[in-house]
Amino acid sequence: MKGTVMYGPRDVRFEERPDPKIIEPTDAIIKLSAACVCGSDLWPYRGIDELKQPMPMGHEYVGIVQEVGSQVKHIKPGQFVVGSFFASDNTCEICQSGYHSSCVNRQPGAPTGAQAEYARIPLADGTLVPTPDLPPEDLIPSLLTASDVLGTGWFAADAANVKPGATVAVVGDGAVGLLGVLSAKQMGAERIIVMSRHPDRQKLALEFGATDIVTERGDEGVAHIKELTDGLGAHSVIEAVGTQEAMMQSIRAARPGGSVGFVGVLHGVEIPGWEFFFSHVHLHGGPAPVRRYLPHLIDLIWNRKINPGKVFDLTLPLEQVAEGYRAMDERRAIKALLIPS
Amino acid sequence: MKGTVMYGPRDVRFEERPDPKIIEPTDAIIKLSAACVCGSDLWPYRGIDELKQPMPMGHEYVGIVQEVGSQVKHIKPGQFVVGSFFASDNTCEICQSGYHSSCVNRQPGAPTGAQAEYARIPLADGTLVPTPDLPPEDLIPSLLTASDVLGTGWFAADAANVKPGATVAVVGDGAVGLLGVLSAKQMGAERIIVMSRHPDRQKLALEFGATDIVTERGDEGVAHIKELTDGLGAHSVIEAVGTQEAMMQSIRAARPGGSVGFVGVLHGVEIPGWEFFFSHVHLHGGPAPVRRYLPHLIDLIWNRKINPGKVFDLTLPLEQVAEGYRAMDERRAIKALLIPS
Repeated sequence: MKGTVMYGPRDVRFEERPDPKIIEPTDAIIKLSAACVCGSDLWPYRGIDELKQPMPMGHEYVGIVQEVGSQVKHIKPGQFVVGSFFASDNTCEICQSGYHSSCVNRQPGAPTGAQAEYARIPLADGTLVPTPDLPPEDLIPSLLTASDVLGTGWFAADAANVKPGATVAVVGDGAVGLLGVLSAKQMGAERIIVMSRHPDRQKLALEFGATDIVTERGDEGVAHIKELTDGLGAHSVIEAVGTQEAMMQSIRAARPGGSVGFVGVLHGVEIPGWEFFFSHVHLHGGPAPVRRYLPHLIDLIWNRKINPGKVFDLTLPLEQVAEGYRAMDERRAIKALLIPS
Repeated sequence: MKGTVMYGPRDVRFEERPDPKIIEPTDAIIKLSAACVCGSDLWPYRGIDELKQPMPMGHEYVGIVQEVGSQVKHIKPGQFVVGSFFASDNTCEICQSGYHSSCVNRQPGAPTGAQAEYARIPLADGTLVPTPDLPPEDLIPSLLTASDVLGTGWFAADAANVKPGATVAVVGDGAVGLLGVLSAKQMGAERIIVMSRHPDRQKLALEFGATDIVTERGDEGVAHIKELTDGLGAHSVIEAVGTQEAMMQSIRAARPGGSVGFVGVLHGVEIPGWEFFFSHVHLHGGPAPVRRYLPHLIDLIWNRKINPGKVFDLTLPLEQVAEGYRAMDERRAIKALLIPS
């Protein structure tokens, strides 16, 4: 088959790869129906995360099951399935408490890479969720978002304790931040303030339910959010970037007793204890336990209650994956959808 | 009157001070029935927090109302009252959400110092809670704990999201940690693991409801807690110290999806983002909003359901306050009770 391998910063190649095979009896092999480039793929692409060796890329996926291992009981060949970036058993105490991405048997979700024609998925029964039927073509992009970017935005809103009637601030206007807006709206937020300077992203944020746009950054951005919230700050803040600046903005934009949900992989961030102590903010986040939310998210998409697939503003044939990385790196695209031929 | 003033590290004097007077129409003057030395008083005592000028000391208090300002409607002279280390209006949106210690009109709880014969209490109606009647003598120490050390331990347990059946770890065997044990027990924790090396504190922890004692510190202490919890860590961890070591121990002792409630004033602490991201821990704390809990805590004490006054293992006449500081600094006492003559 063909798949995507990153060799180093800005060196992404679509090339011949070994066909994935069942290794463990709990594995499944899927044929990808769509794939995409994740914001987190840009960390190594930009050389911020160092690659020790060429790496098969892609961890967001939807596809049709081709084959399952001998111990797979529930997932069947022919099903259309959605998975996530960590494989989990869905039975351990940590999974049962909803933290699948810290499953005691956690494995990479698509170790052979999902920006590819086929992928091996470990712990198939615990990891994959089938759709009610084969989906209509136009739902595939939205179903794909559920596997990471929507699941992550949803977790951010949940970790930020978004409640009906709440005022929510969103730091980061990438695909995760935008789907954080959609998630907060679904959870009943009344006011959703997005920090964004990009007209195309602002527009999508408003479509997803944002009520206010703040274009200032840093202390000025925080001051603007306080102005919009009677000087108190937001009840809930979604941090969808992962830098020191974004984290401090988020903590400072939340009111005492409020919550910050953070999902940007924290790079070089140190949270200063003294300031955090007196902020009275709740802080929670990490790698989204997408599996927890998949049944609900699939249901919302299947019934056309939400249309998160709109975050894909660039569609490319899978073999042009390198252009997808370039477009996202250069911020020409919010998120690139990749369609295998 | 006489009161306590700290002039610098290890220089605490009981000396003649001006009688507190009503300054704002929302003030009350109380006659202290008992006072005490707080663990946080030891930060400046040890020279870790620098004093810019001599400081009247004491912020935990119970006493009898002597006089109230013209706008005080609910608190009456003659009442026995419990207050806290921040004065709050109890009416703003932040107070109403339970975060009185971040009240938009927050003031120091006893600006004239409460290790004294009399004290001025700002925002009396919002800050003070009267007991049902004048309390019997033997309840006074317990009622005094409600004003800070119990209220803080309770908040720590609440911030650590202690639920019935939970496994709780407590880092710090000072008075706050010990009353964190008592609080966790009241909230229905099934297993309470205390990190302590001091036999007298271990004994009190067991009386308050601890089920396990861990004497190791740092990584070994964390490993022992994991051993006791099927390798997963505690559901809830109370951090009652405020140092980097205690904070990291707490985060590492919690399971993914678990919670750390921290109430030790964080000194020089930096929380490393990358580790915290993958810990999947909820983090919440800060200065305890004691006022939120006072009615419930007074009720528990009044009805003799709890006996938090046991943390006082040294009782001194108020004029010997300096000895109280010495005894706590040298860890000869867990907490010193001071009785005005």
